[in-house]
Amino acid sequence: MNLILLFEDDFIGERRVRLEGRRFDHLIEVHRATVGDRLCVGKAGGLIGSGRVISFDRNAAEMEVHFERTPPAPLPVTLILALPRPKFLRRILFCASAMGVKQIVILNSYRVEKSYWHSPFLKKEHIEKQLILGLEQARDTIMPEVLLRPLFKPFVEDELPAIMQGTLPLLADPHAGEPCPRGLGGPVILAVGPEGGFIPYEAGKFLSAGFRAVSLGERILNVESAVPALISRLF
Amino acid sequence: MNLILLFEDDFIGERRVRLEGRRFDHLIEVHRATVGDRLCVGKAGGLIGSGRVISFDRNAAEMEVHFERTPPAPLPVTLILALPRPKFLRRILFCASAMGVKQIVILNSYRVEKSYWHSPFLKKEHIEKQLILGLEQARDTIMPEVLLRPLFKPFVEDELPAIMQGTLPLLADPHAGEPCPRGLGGPVILAVGPEGGFIPYEAGKFLSAGFRAVSLGERILNVESAVPALISRLF
Repeated sequence: MNLILLFEDDFIGERRVRLEGRRFDHLIEVHRATVGDRLCVGKAGGLIGSGRVISFDRNAAEMEVHFERTPPAPLPVTLILALPRPKFLRRILFCASAMGVKQIVILNSYRVEKSYWHSPFLKKEHIEKQLILGLEQARDTIMPEVLLRPLFKPFVEDELPAIMQGTLPLLADPHAGEPCPRGLGGPVILAVGPEGGFIPYEAGKFLSAGFRAVSLGERILNVESAVPALISRLF
Repeated sequence: MNLILLFEDDFIGERRVRLEGRRFDHLIEVHRATVGDRLCVGKAGGLIGSGRVISFDRNAAEMEVHFERTPPAPLPVTLILALPRPKFLRRILFCASAMGVKQIVILNSYRVEKSYWHSPFLKKEHIEKQLILGLEQARDTIMPEVLLRPLFKPFVEDELPAIMQGTLPLLADPHAGEPCPRGLGGPVILAVGPEGGFIPYEAGKFLSAGFRAVSLGERILNVESAVPALISRLF
């Protein structure tokens, strides 16, 4: 936790917050904070600043906070991700959030096990938890938006055309001949398939929508490594 | 498992192998292989080819194999990694192996918890398991070398000068002003600190040895995301 992300509910005064639960435990156990310590804080959706620990009791800490600077710029990328195995999903959401991705579409694919869609990790609060942890890791305050799309065809045919407007649409494909471009400035929409890849029908739908298949090289990475590798290569 | 990695012990004839245990289970459960199926195989340290399933019994499969092409080129990078939390170490070793890193030094640092050095995951067989899984993921056959260096100063002072000869030495540092270079061709030695970073003394030792501090931007990534992000940016 390189930043303590603060929400409306945390405020007990205009510049005062009260932290309980996970963030309180973290203050005690990891930061070993004492009264007077200054820590980096951020207001969800807003500015970053610092907080001074004012008091502790058994279950909570109070801090006086002020905000002064903007969070890091978001990455201009929409990530379309075939639903991975839930334990991977958690880590990928954390990573994407930390790297600055602000729009994530979790999509069905033929090779996604149906049971994954019933995982508790897809509940709103579990998704938000990973996104918050990612923001805290990277010192960001802007929550990513996550869309769940359990039907492939309606998403690709009806929603995708609007989402991809004005972006460079790329389909990650280890077998593609074109290398993944480097150091782009403009907006990108990046589709990453499941382990085993999108089936030809699905890849074809992306390609006929205008996506270009690109590769990181002949090595096939798992989705968990491919997402940071692709994002880091692109920007 | 995109490639079945074969070792000397697997061979029961010049072109015949017998697979038991994990690889047999994977053949049955994931590939749902039947007699006659062809799968990608590789000889540890050698060529890649294909194997045809010849027979199954309750506990083993036999394949006829032949080898015809070289594995993907290794990445010209030595990764120096402050020992991470053991569960992260496993995933980072898997990822580095899949990405083609062939030399990994696991180093102590002030911010590494001493107990991590006693983790069972540091045993040779556990490290090798992750490296093998990474090679199988990426269709590679060349095992990375992993060096454990539980003493920071003797490594940096006595061993590092020889290892870094002829390489571009880079120290990953989220606070560095210089951005991490992109798309390098030549050899690199890359040092990645623990969560919280190398302490100033340690970073200073790298810098005075000739390392340049480079950053992926103002976001602080955890080591697990930073490793694939850095490697992908560099090559």
